[in-house]
Amino acid sequence: MFAKEKIDQILDSYKDFKIATICSHSALQIFNGAKQYGVKTIGICTEKSRELYESFPYAKPDEFIMVDDYSKIPADELVEKEAILIPHGSLVEYTGDGIEDLAIPIFGNRSSLIYEKNRDKMFEWMEKSGLKTPRILKPDEIDGPAIVKFPGAKGGKGYMVVNNPEEYYSKVKEGAKTMIQEFIVGVRAYMHYFHSFDGEAGYKTSYGRVEMMGIDRRMESNADEIARQLSVGANIPISFTVMGNQSLVLRESLLPQYMEMARGVCNSSQNLFGGMHGPFCVETIVTDDLEIYSFEISARIVAGTNILETPYSLYTHGKDYTTGMRIAEELKEAFNKKKLKEIIY
Amino acid sequence: MFAKEKIDQILDSYKDFKIATICSHSALQIFNGAKQYGVKTIGICTEKSRELYESFPYAKPDEFIMVDDYSKIPADELVEKEAILIPHGSLVEYTGDGIEDLAIPIFGNRSSLIYEKNRDKMFEWMEKSGLKTPRILKPDEIDGPAIVKFPGAKGGKGYMVVNNPEEYYSKVKEGAKTMIQEFIVGVRAYMHYFHSFDGEAGYKTSYGRVEMMGIDRRMESNADEIARQLSVGANIPISFTVMGNQSLVLRESLLPQYMEMARGVCNSSQNLFGGMHGPFCVETIVTDDLEIYSFEISARIVAGTNILETPYSLYTHGKDYTTGMRIAEELKEAFNKKKLKEIIY
Amino acid sequence: MFAKEKIDQILDSYKDFKIATICSHSALQIFNGAKQYGVKTIGICTEKSRELYESFPYAKPDEFIMVDDYSKIPADELVEKEAILIPHGSLVEYTGDGIEDLAIPIFGNRSSLIYEKNRDKMFEWMEKSGLKTPRILKPDEIDGPAIVKFPGAKGGKGYMVVNNPEEYYSKVKEGAKTMIQEFIVGVRAYMHYFHSFDGEAGYKTSYGRVEMMGIDRRMESNADEIARQLSVGANIPISFTVMGNQSLVLRESLLPQYMEMARGVCNSSQNLFGGMHGPFCVETIVTDDLEIYSFEISARIVAGTNILETPYSLYTHGKDYTTGMRIAEELKEAFNKKKLKEIIY
Repeated sequence: MFAKEKIDQILDSYKDFKIATICSHSALQIFNGAKQYGVKTIGICTEKSRELYESFPYAKPDEFIMVDDYSKIPADELVEKEAILIPHGSLVEYTGDGIEDLAIPIFGNRSSLIYEKNRDKMFEWMEKSGLKTPRILKPDEIDGPAIVKFPGAKGGKGYMVVNNPEEYYSKVKEGAKTMIQEFIVGVRAYMHYFHSFDGEAGYKTSYGRVEMMGIDRRMESNADEIARQLSVGANIPISFTVMGNQSLVLRESLLPQYMEMARGVCNSSQNLFGGMHGPFCVETIVTDDLEIYSFEISARIVAGTNILETPYSLYTHGKDYTTGMRIAEELKEAFNKKKLKEIIY
Repeated sequence: MFAKEKIDQILDSYKDFKIATICSHSALQIFNGAKQYGVKTIGICTEKSRELYESFPYAKPDEFIMVDDYSKIPADELVEKEAILIPHGSLVEYTGDGIEDLAIPIFGNRSSLIYEKNRDKMFEWMEKSGLKTPRILKPDEIDGPAIVKFPGAKGGKGYMVVNNPEEYYSKVKEGAKTMIQEFIVGVRAYMHYFHSFDGEAGYKTSYGRVEMMGIDRRMESNADEIARQLSVGANIPISFTVMGNQSLVLRESLLPQYMEMARGVCNSSQNLFGGMHGPFCVETIVTDDLEIYSFEISARIVAGTNILETPYSLYTHGKDYTTGMRIAEELKEAFNKKKLKEIIY
Repeated sequence: MFAKEKIDQILDSYKDFKIATICSHSALQIFNGAKQYGVKTIGICTEKSRELYESFPYAKPDEFIMVDDYSKIPADELVEKEAILIPHGSLVEYTGDGIEDLAIPIFGNRSSLIYEKNRDKMFEWMEKSGLKTPRILKPDEIDGPAIVKFPGAKGGKGYMVVNNPEEYYSKVKEGAKTMIQEFIVGVRAYMHYFHSFDGEAGYKTSYGRVEMMGIDRRMESNADEIARQLSVGANIPISFTVMGNQSLVLRESLLPQYMEMARGVCNSSQNLFGGMHGPFCVETIVTDDLEIYSFEISARIVAGTNILETPYSLYTHGKDYTTGMRIAEELKEAFNKKKLKEIIY
């Protein structure tokens, strides 16, 4: 892991700062948000994607750094340009374990990404946060529908559902590293939050405040249209590749519980790895008893925030307000108050 | 039922007014709307929920009245503070029949809530409004999929589907009070309206005008993800607990019919119980022949309005515009024109 | 086909212009957009629909031309009023082949509508555009779930799914004109675009630029709630009548491909029939391998744009921005630059 002291030294050298990210996932939103707060932006981009990012005048980065491959983050060049890197799902996926060693300031806490990538650590974190989670099963414990997950955050691709140990053994290659979760019956809701080092709104945590930003539901191919196949008797296995997101709102009476959950996640993260900063998401399922099960925490901006419209951020900020805007505002405030080191690693 | 004359006396004593409601359901939206029109707000709140309502600067009530339990509305204190109570689904549920006797001005007509809570009266109202409704069946008349509803507006929890009389008798406890409705095959759309005593826009009714505000579809756990269970052969019964809402728009060619329906509901309500005022909703299903079946009227703001974004209110008001804003604007106008008594009981 | 030279003569005679369309489909959005750019509007309307279009102050046409029947477009009167007709799905459906002979300027290229209405031409167009399409099958080639479409754009009504030749022959009347498409397993996403003769944003095409406007998913009755029927063992055939639309966002990494697709569609349309102008839509399905299949192009505004809210138009125009606004802005700019003839036929 690249040393925190060295990141602090880099930050000490910054006279100003720019927002940089990989041109994918939620980059349009991040660039658009930065523009609204007058923060300059850098798009780390492949030739294939450049034209897209040039085609939106209000979401186009101020400059591009072209790369062949998103696994190679040009850290030196970014530091020279006084960049702060915004991590998102594609960045986490492309850089893999390499993200820990990146010699560039990353918004948030890179230690959190280790928890995001490791399923055992994830469940430890969720438990210490007081979240209700699906049971994790050994193959022989499968006693009903269970979801089998393979390592890596590849947008849900390759997830499988099995109903009993026999089905597991017949479908999963021997020796494969899998996590088996009880299939919780209910409806999914992915709650987006933002932790601020000194936000005026939100729930107080042990090291700042947490705000509710919005809610989405991931759209998964083919799971979200499987009913059409079923209805015609087609025998097609279900799959869970995330292809997009839709907005929803939740029963207002559930919100206090979601806020408590977020506070739990923030406070436990301080104990476990020094705290989280900026956007995060808790992926949940609401059962018909209105129990909230959590099955994942994303310790950075999620693509679901791309839906933009949400009552919750409006109620906090008094205007249409995105997670991209929130990131830029937070960094600007921290920069002005000389607090960047508290929220960057 | 608390006498209308006494409510009018209370209103006569008001030098100004505040908007009050229970901190649940659509309270954030109601408070946010009031703030935009400079109307002061009171949140009737339990300890458990207070922090949530304090955490949104633009949706936080100006003051709280703390209660142990939402079934106890502190009427005297509210009247002293010159409050007008905004009824929503949670208020109706928590106060039960007690709402009829509340010694406090309620926006709209408390008589309408009697129709909302009583299924026989509801069907009488829908028929007199000219709405097409699903057939109501006796147990022995069940000749295909039918939905069995139990008394109380508990967010759809405990609804059941049966296919024939035998299934009904085997699943429903003897003596249980149920309503059995034909299961209409189609897609649900819940249309939000607002009746104004002198709105300039909308369809003319016998005592004002009705506007189209927006449309949602309730998200029900586990019904809205039942396909995932079905696809893996899991034998899980369907349930209909409302856990949230999603926005949609309807074919524009259906809108004239929806407007006629709303006018029918308003006009018949005047004959039946002296008229409705403010927000209401007609819950419908659109079949593949584009027939519109109605299965419920909600005679007050519905939680589906929490989605906020809608083209229909934009086309009426020329800006982003919520039902919460509409309530505040209506009350302010009625107050200024000394017409509060016409729209409050 | 009414001659292009005659349309140009009509345009030469215009001192100013108004936007006209049939009061259905997306007319509220079109009128609302025009109002925002100060363009006068004409609603071609039946008695039945007039009250609806009068009830929205910000989407009401400036004047009405009343008709008995939408198949009769009063061309002379419209030309006299210096109208430009905006084609939408209902206009295409109601006028049928007659649209080719309408003696009135139509925004876009009326030749494109011939391609939209003819399935063979449609598939030729999609192939020449480089789109991946579902296989088109002869009845005897049906080797899995296949969708059977009947002629006419009647909102999906009457589409059928069959699994093998036997099922096809037993369900389809002998001699019926059908198109049989492989049933692609995935999730639908309908991408809205706008081609501009000289837009500053978007992807360059051979004769202008193409912008991404937004995405919807059509809601089909009963297909979008078929799971509820299935779960209770009800034996109800699936149907695909479009009754509304819902908003979604796509994985950002798919957007470059969608932009390439749009450019392909525009460029091939120039070769095939002289180019497309204004709004259009490519209807797609995203598989669990993130392959994008296209199954239709709509060469004019689609009703899915009625959802209004979209990040993509915000990123292009820097504010809430609808396809209705885009149409008015484009026509105004073309009028001022004396380029109307390039984008009207």
